[in-house]
Amino acid sequence: MKIAIIGTGNVGRTLAARLMELGYDVMLGTRNVTDKLASSEKDNYGNPSFSEWFKSNSNVRLGSFSEAATFGELVINATHGSNSVTALILAGSKNLAGKILIDISNPLDFSNGMPPSLLPGLNNTNSLGEEIQKTFPDTMVVKTLNTMWCGLMVNPKLIGNGDHINFLSGNNTEAKTRVRKLLNQFGWSDENVVDLGDITAARATESMLPIWLRVMGVTKSGAFNFKLVR
Amino acid sequence: MKIAIIGTGNVGRTLAARLMELGYDVMLGTRNVTDKLASSEKDNYGNPSFSEWFKSNSNVRLGSFSEAATFGELVINATHGSNSVTALILAGSKNLAGKILIDISNPLDFSNGMPPSLLPGLNNTNSLGEEIQKTFPDTMVVKTLNTMWCGLMVNPKLIGNGDHINFLSGNNTEAKTRVRKLLNQFGWSDENVVDLGDITAARATESMLPIWLRVMGVTKSGAFNFKLVR
Repeated sequence: MKIAIIGTGNVGRTLAARLMELGYDVMLGTRNVTDKLASSEKDNYGNPSFSEWFKSNSNVRLGSFSEAATFGELVINATHGSNSVTALILAGSKNLAGKILIDISNPLDFSNGMPPSLLPGLNNTNSLGEEIQKTFPDTMVVKTLNTMWCGLMVNPKLIGNGDHINFLSGNNTEAKTRVRKLLNQFGWSDENVVDLGDITAARATESMLPIWLRVMGVTKSGAFNFKLVR
Repeated sequence: MKIAIIGTGNVGRTLAARLMELGYDVMLGTRNVTDKLASSEKDNYGNPSFSEWFKSNSNVRLGSFSEAATFGELVINATHGSNSVTALILAGSKNLAGKILIDISNPLDFSNGMPPSLLPGLNNTNSLGEEIQKTFPDTMVVKTLNTMWCGLMVNPKLIGNGDHINFLSGNNTEAKTRVRKLLNQFGWSDENVVDLGDITAARATESMLPIWLRVMGVTKSGAFNFKLVR
């Protein structure tokens, strides 16, 4: 199965490497392929430049946003939340039509300092997940994995034997079932993938970022998650 | 030690009963004592009227907001978030000055239907906890317990042997230490009471309400909480 990942940051790379390991054919989509391969800058978190990473992951395909969206039978949005809608418009609504789009992004607003808040207009009574669904009505948006560090997204068993929570929301039940199967392959048990209903539940999962960021500030590590205790 | 609880709803009553059990002298503060005792209406959640509850909890004192604030050496805000600032102004800033105010309220906005969102102006880049601290600069506001059902606030061992999370934030370290001791008496272990720093962290804990409400919508019970897995 062909999977496209829109975004080439640490999250996109982590997903790409894991999906390749699971046997998927993966294309990363970027704004400008030539620029991306030419740049030797590390990102803000000290991760190697894309070209450096690409040398040891050359079996991953690289294309423009629109090439990636065309290639993927399933598409994952792993762009920064502030760029997501723009990047997906460049990917092309016709290339995304009829497909599942897994949205793992968060509408983080770094303009007021640290820790970031959520972007105006995309929090509380709206969300980035909903905004994407409204912008691409022919695409089946499924929000998931956005409440944790990317290392845990693709390998929950790194901590607590994988017994911690991940949320799922979206308007299309069949799309959520298919995404759940992919999450199972990453190591998520069905019990720990909680379906919150339609895409408006993205308001709730995106609203977990403030507590996630504060806890990370205290524990000094992103390798944590929450478990539902009942 | 004398403790005042501002608010006579289910949360205030639950706290009052537990604090009495622990040997504290407790006064509940209400807007109008005569009206409160005269009313026989159940609340929106089917809890008995205050006068009904008071019959079997007559060792709890009842006073006006300002009588309660005067009485309490420590004060707890257990009002609805939309009324909190008004109720505390009626309690009187001079009666609250120099005291610890434990704020367990949430700025829920029911005006857009269910599940509620957070009140405009009191979310994302502000919070109710901060707003109260700004309104009463001579009071030591400590935000805690606002991320769970009141039954768990005062008796965390009801689920998962009490091994789940509660957050603490506030500008005064000594006040947080004193509140932590009270939380210990409720059954919270030090390990599970995570100090997130100053009162701006209330933005993060109040932002957990949307996910709390969605999970409650799925599990059909408020008797759950999150545990930090690392």
